[in-house]
Amino acid sequence: MAILQVSVVPVGTSTTSLSSWVAECLRLLAAYPNLKHELTPMGTVIEGSLEDALNAARDMHEVLFKIGAQRVLTTISIDDRRDRRLTLRSKVDSVVKKLKE
Amino acid sequence: MAILQVSVVPVGTSTTSLSSWVAECLRLLAAYPNLKHELTPMGTVIEGSLEDALNAARDMHEVLFKIGAQRVLTTISIDDRRDRRLTLRSKVDSVVKKLKE
Amino acid sequence: MAILQVSVVPVGTSTTSLSSWVAECLRLLAAYPNLKHELTPMGTVIEGSLEDALNAARDMHEVLFKIGAQRVLTTISIDDRRDRRLTLRSKVDSVVKKLKE
Amino acid sequence: MAILQVSVVPVGTSTTSLSSWVAECLRLLAAYPNLKHELTPMGTVIEGSLEDALNAARDMHEVLFKIGAQRVLTTISIDDRRDRRLTLRSKVDSVVKKLKE
Repeated sequence: MAILQVSVVPVGTSTTSLSSWVAECLRLLAAYPNLKHELTPMGTVIEGSLEDALNAARDMHEVLFKIGAQRVLTTISIDDRRDRRLTLRSKVDSVVKKLKE
Repeated sequence: MAILQVSVVPVGTSTTSLSSWVAECLRLLAAYPNLKHELTPMGTVIEGSLEDALNAARDMHEVLFKIGAQRVLTTISIDDRRDRRLTLRSKVDSVVKKLKE
Repeated sequence: MAILQVSVVPVGTSTTSLSSWVAECLRLLAAYPNLKHELTPMGTVIEGSLEDALNAARDMHEVLFKIGAQRVLTTISIDDRRDRRLTLRSKVDSVVKKLKE
Repeated sequence: MAILQVSVVPVGTSTTSLSSWVAECLRLLAAYPNLKHELTPMGTVIEGSLEDALNAARDMHEVLFKIGAQRVLTTISIDDRRDRRLTLRSKVDSVVKKLKE
């Protein structure tokens, strides 16, 4: 299990709004029932197997071309821990627990 | 108003856990009453003036050295939009609205 | 053709040095004769087909576990332009050309 | 001494080219004689004191608004090592040395 953050940016669009591009990326995550995801203000975080999550990230990148982008900048950040199972929730929870100590 | 995501990684720590380092970063954000922040699975997102937010990011980087790190990798992602006011909430809300259309 | 930057960070290593981990990543790029790559101070930049480059990035991430890491943070930045061919060289050259104007 | 990588992306420009924006960022680095910098295919890497380098990064972000951008996404990656002096050159050299071993 890995956690990925994916952020996509189309370059050379006529407007400064990015939300409709991001919405399209989120829609295609429905095709990945084994992945959990969460939208944050700076990207989409995904939990699942590294392989599935990377495939999803690639699809999110690709879909922007399908809906009109000619240049896309995508950043994928992977946090992959194999001595313990990471989840979207456990990552936040362990920090919150430390804050209360 | 800008939105920043800050993630800090100490290098050469003896354990694979990062949560106590991140907790220390969050604690110091109390010194910035003008900034809103939110912990996500892959970083801390901050809303506020670019100047305050960058100062906070730098403090988050610096505090890791104070508590023992000798090498720190910090990533700061800035989303700064000046034709409209961005907030942590509005960024997520506009995508959710598009998803419902 | 896409340009990728890949940076890998093992967490919980006992020393602050990262160079031997990065060297291992570069070694495996020999298995990708269709990719050009260049080592920069902050990561490895790769030029080639998106598919090959993403496979290489995944291998670079994976090899760190093979040589002992238990947690790995990898960042992959993709610049993919389909209205013109991007190369490692052309990206730098176009900026240099603008600087001389 | 720290090493930073800075990459700037204007959103909502009418063309897919980014080189003239990047050239403008590089021009202003002349105002920082204490910083060394190097243009790579995926960003500008800077060597110098953390304070100077962060100020330069902020200027690079800001200049895009001065020349017409209304939304700018900037990524700053910091590598700050305090047990040894890092330079742009030493980072690459240590990997190359490991590759030859």
